[in-house]
Amino acid sequence: MSQQGKFIVIEGIEGAGKSSAIAVVENTLRDAHIDYIKTREPGGTPLAESLRSLVKSPDLDETLTPECELLLMYASRSQLLHNVIKPALQDGRWVIGDRHDLSSRAYQGGGREIDDKILESLADITLQGFTPDLTFYLDIDPEIGLQRAANRGELDRIEQEKIEFFYRVRDKYLSFANQDEKIVIIDASQPMTVVHEQIEQRLRQYLRDNG
Amino acid sequence: MSQQGKFIVIEGIEGAGKSSAIAVVENTLRDAHIDYIKTREPGGTPLAESLRSLVKSPDLDETLTPECELLLMYASRSQLLHNVIKPALQDGRWVIGDRHDLSSRAYQGGGREIDDKILESLADITLQGFTPDLTFYLDIDPEIGLQRAANRGELDRIEQEKIEFFYRVRDKYLSFANQDEKIVIIDASQPMTVVHEQIEQRLRQYLRDNG
Repeated sequence: MSQQGKFIVIEGIEGAGKSSAIAVVENTLRDAHIDYIKTREPGGTPLAESLRSLVKSPDLDETLTPECELLLMYASRSQLLHNVIKPALQDGRWVIGDRHDLSSRAYQGGGREIDDKILESLADITLQGFTPDLTFYLDIDPEIGLQRAANRGELDRIEQEKIEFFYRVRDKYLSFANQDEKIVIIDASQPMTVVHEQIEQRLRQYLRDNG
Repeated sequence: MSQQGKFIVIEGIEGAGKSSAIAVVENTLRDAHIDYIKTREPGGTPLAESLRSLVKSPDLDETLTPECELLLMYASRSQLLHNVIKPALQDGRWVIGDRHDLSSRAYQGGGREIDDKILESLADITLQGFTPDLTFYLDIDPEIGLQRAANRGELDRIEQEKIEFFYRVRDKYLSFANQDEKIVIIDASQPMTVVHEQIEQRLRQYLRDNG
């Protein structure tokens, strides 16, 4: 394939249903005979996975500063983008991303209340203008999402934050999603079959428009 | 002690003589009955030491992007600053730093040719105006420094760069040092006894002026 692949990202807080949404995207691409890879952030390369472990560990023996957390997220993103995402897209493969830059805007910008301008300058440094082609943001009340996540088992360091943190994350997600037509907001409080149908329909439409 | 400690930094390229210069600073502080700790960058906390290993490893199995290297340096610096340097200074202890922000300006800014403005914005995010009280920059021709470093044994990932890289590092060191009166340039090509004498004299003068 000589045509450039597309980068499709799934975003949302814990318990919003990202994993099953990714499965829907996979099935839809497979049906359309599109070759793809999956990535996750932070992580996705050996070095980035090491950073993921550091940043998510619930039993770090030192305080992780908000700035360090932020810088590690972008360090991980830089590795993944240059060593995995861009080469795949250039090869004509599509990339399904479990989180990308919008997560930093929401978690570090919203949750940790780091200034948007700082986030912007880190995105400039790291991404140099690169953005996803299509993002599905699964919107859910943190009360419901965290309950679902808790039912799944142990929470990581970031998932252990207070509920207010996740309300700030959600607000920031929504404020970005409302300004960007490449971000599709999906109401993830609906029955799962409805959520999946909406994702599939929207993705099929994208395939028709960009086929 | 209620008085704030001071942060004294030693900078220079490989083989400039940083280790023995640090020993001179230690002896001088000990003579003056000043309580101190030593730090090194990148590193100095458990998490920051993990980052040091990642960034210096000569056999990483993936390409480290210049941006990732840069972000990891600042992530490490953030941990060290907030968890070690600032608490020590607040306790009245002095801190002797084996490298600090000027190394990033010189290596990533000079060596890797990353724009000074990017470095400035990362320094703003990470240091929020914090700067060393006194820096000794040990200036040496990279040809001589690298020969000394090579004689010591295996070179790390950054030390394996070409000689032109270190000439750019040196130029950047000198351009910052020439603009900042808190940076003392020491000609490290002089006999070691002379180098040490100059550091000791300059530090004793600083102690008199800030006693």
